[in-house]
Amino acid sequence: MLDPSRRPQVVIVGAGFGGLQAAKALANAPVDIALVDTYNHHCFQPLLYQVATAALSPADVAWPIRAIVRTQKNVRVIMARVTGVDVQARRVHTSEIDLPYDYLVLATGSTHSYFGHDDWAPFAPGLKHIADATEIRRRFLLAFERAEVVEDEAERARLLTFVVVGGGATGVEMAGAIAEVARRTLRHDFRRIDPRTSRTILLEAGPRLLPSFPKHLSDYAMRSLQKMGVEVELNRTVTGCDAHGVSLGGDGGNRIEAATVVWAAGVVASAAALWIGAEHDRAGRVKVNADLTVSGRPEIFAVGDTASVLDRDGRPVPGIAPAAKQMGSYAGKAIAARVLGQPAPAPFAYRHLGELATIGRKSAVVKLGFFQLTGFLGWLFWSAIHIYFLIGLRNRFVVAINWLWSYVTFQRGARLIGVARQ
Amino acid sequence: MLDPSRRPQVVIVGAGFGGLQAAKALANAPVDIALVDTYNHHCFQPLLYQVATAALSPADVAWPIRAIVRTQKNVRVIMARVTGVDVQARRVHTSEIDLPYDYLVLATGSTHSYFGHDDWAPFAPGLKHIADATEIRRRFLLAFERAEVVEDEAERARLLTFVVVGGGATGVEMAGAIAEVARRTLRHDFRRIDPRTSRTILLEAGPRLLPSFPKHLSDYAMRSLQKMGVEVELNRTVTGCDAHGVSLGGDGGNRIEAATVVWAAGVVASAAALWIGAEHDRAGRVKVNADLTVSGRPEIFAVGDTASVLDRDGRPVPGIAPAAKQMGSYAGKAIAARVLGQPAPAPFAYRHLGELATIGRKSAVVKLGFFQLTGFLGWLFWSAIHIYFLIGLRNRFVVAINWLWSYVTFQRGARLIGVARQ
Repeated sequence: MLDPSRRPQVVIVGAGFGGLQAAKALANAPVDIALVDTYNHHCFQPLLYQVATAALSPADVAWPIRAIVRTQKNVRVIMARVTGVDVQARRVHTSEIDLPYDYLVLATGSTHSYFGHDDWAPFAPGLKHIADATEIRRRFLLAFERAEVVEDEAERARLLTFVVVGGGATGVEMAGAIAEVARRTLRHDFRRIDPRTSRTILLEAGPRLLPSFPKHLSDYAMRSLQKMGVEVELNRTVTGCDAHGVSLGGDGGNRIEAATVVWAAGVVASAAALWIGAEHDRAGRVKVNADLTVSGRPEIFAVGDTASVLDRDGRPVPGIAPAAKQMGSYAGKAIAARVLGQPAPAPFAYRHLGELATIGRKSAVVKLGFFQLTGFLGWLFWSAIHIYFLIGLRNRFVVAINWLWSYVTFQRGARLIGVARQ
Repeated sequence: MLDPSRRPQVVIVGAGFGGLQAAKALANAPVDIALVDTYNHHCFQPLLYQVATAALSPADVAWPIRAIVRTQKNVRVIMARVTGVDVQARRVHTSEIDLPYDYLVLATGSTHSYFGHDDWAPFAPGLKHIADATEIRRRFLLAFERAEVVEDEAERARLLTFVVVGGGATGVEMAGAIAEVARRTLRHDFRRIDPRTSRTILLEAGPRLLPSFPKHLSDYAMRSLQKMGVEVELNRTVTGCDAHGVSLGGDGGNRIEAATVVWAAGVVASAAALWIGAEHDRAGRVKVNADLTVSGRPEIFAVGDTASVLDRDGRPVPGIAPAAKQMGSYAGKAIAARVLGQPAPAPFAYRHLGELATIGRKSAVVKLGFFQLTGFLGWLFWSAIHIYFLIGLRNRFVVAINWLWSYVTFQRGARLIGVARQ
C-alpha cells in the first residue's frame, strides 16, 4: 500500500534513450523520480564510432543528464553505480545512497559480448561508452605513430593492420571510417610510411553484412566498403584474440597479425536481470509481460536492451535507439496511468521505423519501410537524421560543422592520442 | 666536421610554441628536421583552463603536430619521450629511437612547481597538458555530483569549496570560470544543493593579483572577481596540500577544507638542462648566450620556457607564448644562417607585445604597450586574439561558436566527467 501522504517514488536506472524517455513521459505525473546513471552524461551511441575515429569530440555526442532534465522539477539526477536491488524492501542500492521505490524502471542497456571469452576484451575493445571510444581512438592513431618509427618490417605491417570484428551497423561504420582516415586523412602526414598501405579487415561470421537489412543493401554496403579498400571477409568466425592479433576459424581458418582490433560483434544485456532475480533470455535480457513489467513484479519495468520483447510478428525487437525510446515512453505512461488510477494502456507494440548505416564519408544505406536510399542521398539522409536526434542545439551545430569541414577537407577534428586520464 | 654529402640534421625537442616556430623558420633551409614530442598534438595552453572548466573540448585547443607541418617536407614528426642527450656523440635518446643531430633545439617548456613539495601534486593538480585539464574538469564537476548526494553538512561544504592557488593569469582565469560555472551554468541543475552557495577562493602569496600588470589593472581584476563571488585572499602562502584541503601560512595562518584544489602557482623548467648538463637558474632554465645557444655548445639552442633570457632592460623574459615564438623563430633563423654560411643574426632581443587575462564571461584586462583595455571591450579583444592565434580554421570556428553559445546561454559545451581512459 502506498502512503497517500507522500508522492509515489519512481527510480529509473540508466539515462540512455529508454531511461530518458521514461522520465519524460512522467513529466506531468504526481511522482518523485530518481534518475540514476553511472555517468553524468547521456551518450549518443549511434555516433560513438565517430569519436573512435577522431571525427568528433566526446562532448559532441554526450550531454549532461542534469541539463537534459533541468526544467523537469520532479526528476532528481543521481550519479551513482547501482550495486543491487532489494525487491522485497523495494530499495535500489547504489555506490552512494539507497533509493526506495514504488516503481522501478530498468533501462541499463547492454554491453559487448565476447561469447564467453571475456579474456579477449583487453585486446579487442568494444564500443559502448565514451571511454571505449577514446581508447580505440588512442590505439588507432598510436598504431600509425609507432609504425612511423619502428624498424622491423613485420611489426610495421602488424601495426598498419586494423581488424573490425562484426559486420553489423557499428562494424560497417567503423571499418569504413578507419579506411577513410588511413587513405585520405593521414595520406600526407607521414614520411617513412604510406598510410594507404595499411589494411582494414572487416570480419563477419555470417554470410552477409548488415543482416537486418535486405540482401541487396547488404551487397551494396559490401561493394562500397571494398571500393574504399576494406577487405570484407564473410563466414569468418574469430576463435581467439591476443596481444598480437586474431585467430580465425571457418573456411581455411588462419591468423591475422594486427595491433588494433575493434569488437563490434554481439551484445549482452546488463546485470539488471540478476539484480532482481528475474527470468532472462540467453543474452541476459529480462523477460517481460506485454506491458513491459516483470512477471510477478508489476512495479518493475524493463525497457530497451534490458528487456526481451517480441514484435507483432513474433520477431525480437531490435536493440536500437528507437525501440528503447518507444519502450521507455510506454513504461512512463503506464506508471503515470497507475498513479492517477487511470486504465492501463494497451499492451506495448513496437513500431519498426527502419534502419540506417553509413559507409564512409559519402555513402549510406537506408531502409524505412518501403522507402530505401543508398549512396550520397542515403548519406545526406543519414546525416540529417542523426543531427536531428542529437540532444542540444550546440551539439547539432558543432557536429554539423565538423562533418561539413571533414567532408570538404578530408580532415578529422579530434586526432588526439589520449594519455593518462585524458 | 659535417659530412658534405648529407644534409645537416636538426633535432627539435618539443612541439610547443617555440619548437613549431623553430621548425617553421627552417622551412626553406637545406636540413633534415626531426620534431620530437611526447604527444601527437600541439596544445594551445592559453585556453587550457577552458577545457578544465568544461567550456571547450580537448580537441578544440589541440592540433595534430603532423597536420601542422604536413606540407613542410623537411620535417619528420616523431612521437616519443626524450630520455637523454649524448652531447659528445650528438645523439638524442628517445623511448623509440636514437636521433643524431648537428643542431639541437630544446623547446621542452615548463611544468608546474610545488616549490619542493611534489607530494602536494596529487591533491592540487596544475594545468599544463590536456590530461591535467580533463582531470581538473573531472574533479570540479564530480564535486557537485557528490555534494548532491552526501548527507553530512561539513562534507557537503568541503565538496562545494574550490581553491585556486596562484594569482597569475591562469589562476585569475580559473577562479573566474569556476565561479561562473557554479553560479550560472549549474544554477538550476541540482535539487538538494544550490551551486550558488559554493565558495571559490583564490589564494595569492604576493600583495596583488596579476603582478606583471600595472597596479590599477590588478585592482580591477580583483574587484571583478569579487563581484563574481570569488573570495580573493592576498599575501597568503600555502604551507600544505592534502586529501582534505590546504593549510595556509601568512597573516593568521589557517586551514581551508576543500575537495578541489587547482595549482596555478609557479612553474619549473623541464629536465632539458640536466640532459645536457648545462648551467641553469633556480627555475631549471638553461642559461644561454645572446644567440640562445648553450655556452660551450654552439650547436645546442634553448628556447621558450627552457631558456633563461634577459630582455634589453635586464628583466627576465616572461614565460608566455609570444616570447617562446620569438625565440623559436630566432633559433631557426640562426641555424639556417650557419648552414648556408651566412652571417649570424644580431643577438636575440625580446619584443614585449603585452599581456592579457580574461575574468569570467565578459571581462578582461589587456595591456599592449600604452594601449590598455578592461571590461567587455577587453573581453572582446581577448577573444579575438585567442581565436586568431588558434591553429586550424575548424578550431577557430568551433571555439567561436562555443563561446558565442556559452555567452548567450551561460551553458558549457563539455560537461563530461571522465572515467577510466576518457
